[in-house]
Amino acid sequence: MKDLVVQKYGGTSVGTVEKIKRVARRIVAQVDAGKQVVVVVSAMGDSTDELVNLAYEINPTPPSREMDVLLATGEQVSIALLAMAIQTIGYKVISLTGAQCGIKTSDVHKRARISEIDTNRLEKELNDSKIVIVAGFQGIDENHEITTLGRGGSDTSAVALAAALRADCCEIYTDVDGVYDADPRIVPDAKKIDEISYQEVLEMASLGAGVLHPRSVELAEKYGLPLVVRSSFNNNPGTVIKNFENNNEKHVIKEDFDMEKVLVRGIALDENIAKISILEVPDKPGIAFQLFSSLASANIHVDMIVQNVNRTSVNDISFTVNLDELPEAVEVSQKFAFEVNAQKVAFDQGIAKLSVIGTGIVANTEIASKFFEALFEMGINIQTISTSEIKMSCLIDKERAKEAMVNIHKKFEL
Amino acid sequence: MKDLVVQKYGGTSVGTVEKIKRVARRIVAQVDAGKQVVVVVSAMGDSTDELVNLAYEINPTPPSREMDVLLATGEQVSIALLAMAIQTIGYKVISLTGAQCGIKTSDVHKRARISEIDTNRLEKELNDSKIVIVAGFQGIDENHEITTLGRGGSDTSAVALAAALRADCCEIYTDVDGVYDADPRIVPDAKKIDEISYQEVLEMASLGAGVLHPRSVELAEKYGLPLVVRSSFNNNPGTVIKNFENNNEKHVIKEDFDMEKVLVRGIALDENIAKISILEVPDKPGIAFQLFSSLASANIHVDMIVQNVNRTSVNDISFTVNLDELPEAVEVSQKFAFEVNAQKVAFDQGIAKLSVIGTGIVANTEIASKFFEALFEMGINIQTISTSEIKMSCLIDKERAKEAMVNIHKKFEL
Repeated sequence: MKDLVVQKYGGTSVGTVEKIKRVARRIVAQVDAGKQVVVVVSAMGDSTDELVNLAYEINPTPPSREMDVLLATGEQVSIALLAMAIQTIGYKVISLTGAQCGIKTSDVHKRARISEIDTNRLEKELNDSKIVIVAGFQGIDENHEITTLGRGGSDTSAVALAAALRADCCEIYTDVDGVYDADPRIVPDAKKIDEISYQEVLEMASLGAGVLHPRSVELAEKYGLPLVVRSSFNNNPGTVIKNFENNNEKHVIKEDFDMEKVLVRGIALDENIAKISILEVPDKPGIAFQLFSSLASANIHVDMIVQNVNRTSVNDISFTVNLDELPEAVEVSQKFAFEVNAQKVAFDQGIAKLSVIGTGIVANTEIASKFFEALFEMGINIQTISTSEIKMSCLIDKERAKEAMVNIHKKFEL
Repeated sequence: MKDLVVQKYGGTSVGTVEKIKRVARRIVAQVDAGKQVVVVVSAMGDSTDELVNLAYEINPTPPSREMDVLLATGEQVSIALLAMAIQTIGYKVISLTGAQCGIKTSDVHKRARISEIDTNRLEKELNDSKIVIVAGFQGIDENHEITTLGRGGSDTSAVALAAALRADCCEIYTDVDGVYDADPRIVPDAKKIDEISYQEVLEMASLGAGVLHPRSVELAEKYGLPLVVRSSFNNNPGTVIKNFENNNEKHVIKEDFDMEKVLVRGIALDENIAKISILEVPDKPGIAFQLFSSLASANIHVDMIVQNVNRTSVNDISFTVNLDELPEAVEVSQKFAFEVNAQKVAFDQGIAKLSVIGTGIVANTEIASKFFEALFEMGINIQTISTSEIKMSCLIDKERAKEAMVNIHKKFEL
């Protein structure tokens, strides 16, 4: 059996005719090296944004089902063009839409989750020695409705396909050289990480480091699938994301070495969030459950949750959501507030979440104090703090977030 | 049961956000008038051309299967946007791709023929009081491959859906007021025809009058489905195309009246053709069959065929094809010429086909002489003549074709 690799190219990698041709050459080089290749592509450059703008010009609240019908065309254009580019170099190739390559999803439009991949068609085409180009970000539900996977969709498609096909690895091609210890567009000194665990990159991703969406990393971890994040514009080796626990000695040395030198692996900034506060919620059992299950049924992803006891019988509940889910989250919250007789719902779009990530962070008070000290020195107020095994996050004023990120990167001597 | 109407809007009718909104208002007006409406739309404005150009930039001979994957996105964008526009006015609506609305086709890419329409999904949505918006021009073959119908595809989709759903009529919306007796862009005096038979409009369409593709008219005739050609930019009544034979007395009077006044119903010009000549083909039985069956297997539509006896043992065979099928037709012809040992293959892209159409034309020598006289007076050489029951066509120099059309329109006092 040949080695099977799943590659994913993002929108910037296929943004122009020239870039599509370059990606085609990169793909056939893998075939020349004796590999079977399945490629997942995103929509070209800004084409998705253009479609979204068209939709909003026509309808300020476009129905989700129709948005999916609309947006799925972006990837369909990319797969056809990339297949044409590969065919013209003289290789056997076929493009498949989400539906055609058997990506079955839930029926939640704009945020569908992959439930199953029927690999029959894919395997047939691979056995026929074809390079298979798959439309990322999309699938089909059990009623043959077109669905899209939402944020991080194409990465998730790639990882899910790699897992279903038991590929040797999944390569995520993007416009940066790999995973950095801080966003290099904000922090000029940011350094590329060679190897990192799923858990660490998961924290970085969920905290806005932006290279990979947590969904795809979670999925890769679940199947123990090595991920490689690389640039599609050069041949640098990129960042390997894998499970060190299941690995050999080499890792132990590496990990020990890393732990000794620096505890903090990276700094992440997420500016794409908003905070909702529900004030004076009567303190009754099950009331938080009621709120968060309503949000979950509306498929709203809730992040940091803080509950502050105000008085004896009422609480304030605050949580953060993705900025683009804010209107829906506010609507659900207002309904909840009305039902439970809370005082009011407030929200704040002017915040950002700044986080430090590294194994064993909570156990090390030095990290916390350095982090808070840096913010204090800059006169930046911390609105909310939350910690986990391997990260510590603060909500701060969005306007000063980038500046804070640069300073903290320096402070930790990354 | 409510009246069911199928409407088709071409690319110019949905070319911009404003136009899409206007089409949406037109559709809901029909619903307000108590009708069930199924709408077939083409891709927005020039979007198909843009996709075609992208494809050719990437691959000078893009594979047909991938072209279909690419081009089908154009209509998918239109249906989603039109559904959004209707939903925002407050009506129940759903968009369906060719695959979703059960349009099954043959497996010939870029020129598929509709084999069957599974109306289950369509009927379910109509019973749910929804306006159904269908992507024209596309379908799916039995291997779930995306196909497109080629020239006149969206009109054909609309007529096929109307026939399958037993609709009361099929309205084709375009940028002109109906079927004219000559192309109004070339002949300023051209007059709109109020009512016309399938056969007559079929001749006009196949001769390049351009409003309707013959495929859709043939299909409408087969099912006795009245077609209405109207402008999407005003409320003028348009042209009704129907079967006069099956109709009531009113028609007889109308038809008699028309026949008495003018035999010639219209002038048509097709500039989108080319002539191929295969010179010195050995005169053996079955040789023409061999050529035209090769062309048919390549799905090339052949129009006028002329075979001139040159010498005792060799013939010249000439025929016309659509300009965009010329390269493929030349390739097939060259292969044929090599196999049968013909002398050479020549082709001419500088020709146009000018035709006069009307019931009983062949029986009336006056028409032919007037037609030829007009061309003679202008010093235009006739390369080839062909006639049928209701039309007479001449191949002439493309450069002088428009001028000839204007003169002949005058000559017949249309």
